Amino acid sequence: MSIQPLPAFEPPYLMTVFTSVRTGEAPGYAETAVRMAELVKEIPGYLGHENAHTPGGLSITVAYFRDEAALTEWRTQQEHQRAQKQGRDEWYDSYTVHVATVERSHGFVRKH
Amino acid sequence: MSIQPLPAFEPPYLMTVFTSVRTGEAPGYAETAVRMAELVKEIPGYLGHENAHTPGGLSITVAYFRDEAALTEWRTQQEHQRAQKQGRDEWYDSYTVHVATVERSHGFVRKH
Repeated sequence: MSIQPLPAFEPPYLMTVFTSVRTGEAPGYAETAVRMAELVKEIPGYLGHENAHTPGGLSITVAYFRDEAALTEWRTQQEHQRAQKQGRDEWYDSYTVHVATVERSHGFVRKH
Repeated sequence: MSIQPLPAFEPPYLMTVFTSVRTGEAPGYAETAVRMAELVKEIPGYLGHENAHTPGGLSITVAYFRDEAALTEWRTQQEHQRAQKQGRDEWYDSYTVHVATVERSHGFVRKH
């Protein structure tokens, strides 16, 4: 199956955009990323996430949640909080987080 | 100067997330992308945009606008509308657009 963007969910929903540039050294990064991708699925109200990464450049991760309660649960999850700290200590050269409410969305899929 | 994510702007502001997968054939795509990146700068209330692209996979473009009026002006700009149509006709296999209001944001930059 070919790669596709996540579909438009039914608004309103929350969307967090995490834009980041990594440091050169990142021991433990890949394992933690895999673990976090598993862990977030346990959060009720988690809708999905997707990432794009320009080699040697910017990475953008977008995560979607049904409501504020779901996002709060994820943001304050203990193992996730430890990963966030390790990110600031070791993995990221810089990042920005934008938390937003999606008011409308739509998608397009080519007919083959 | 090294690559950095765009900084957190002062909320509230609008954020559009455009996630896409391209078709193999894309004549005219690169030139149009460059042209659109120039053209959007003319919109009052445009704050910036950034993109990450996994080779052969997902591309994510995030654009930031001060308010709905700025986004509407960009969305309905004639040359941009022609590019959007060409995108559906030729360049994109699938895409999703999420339009959201950013309520909070923060950034991190490592001290060197």
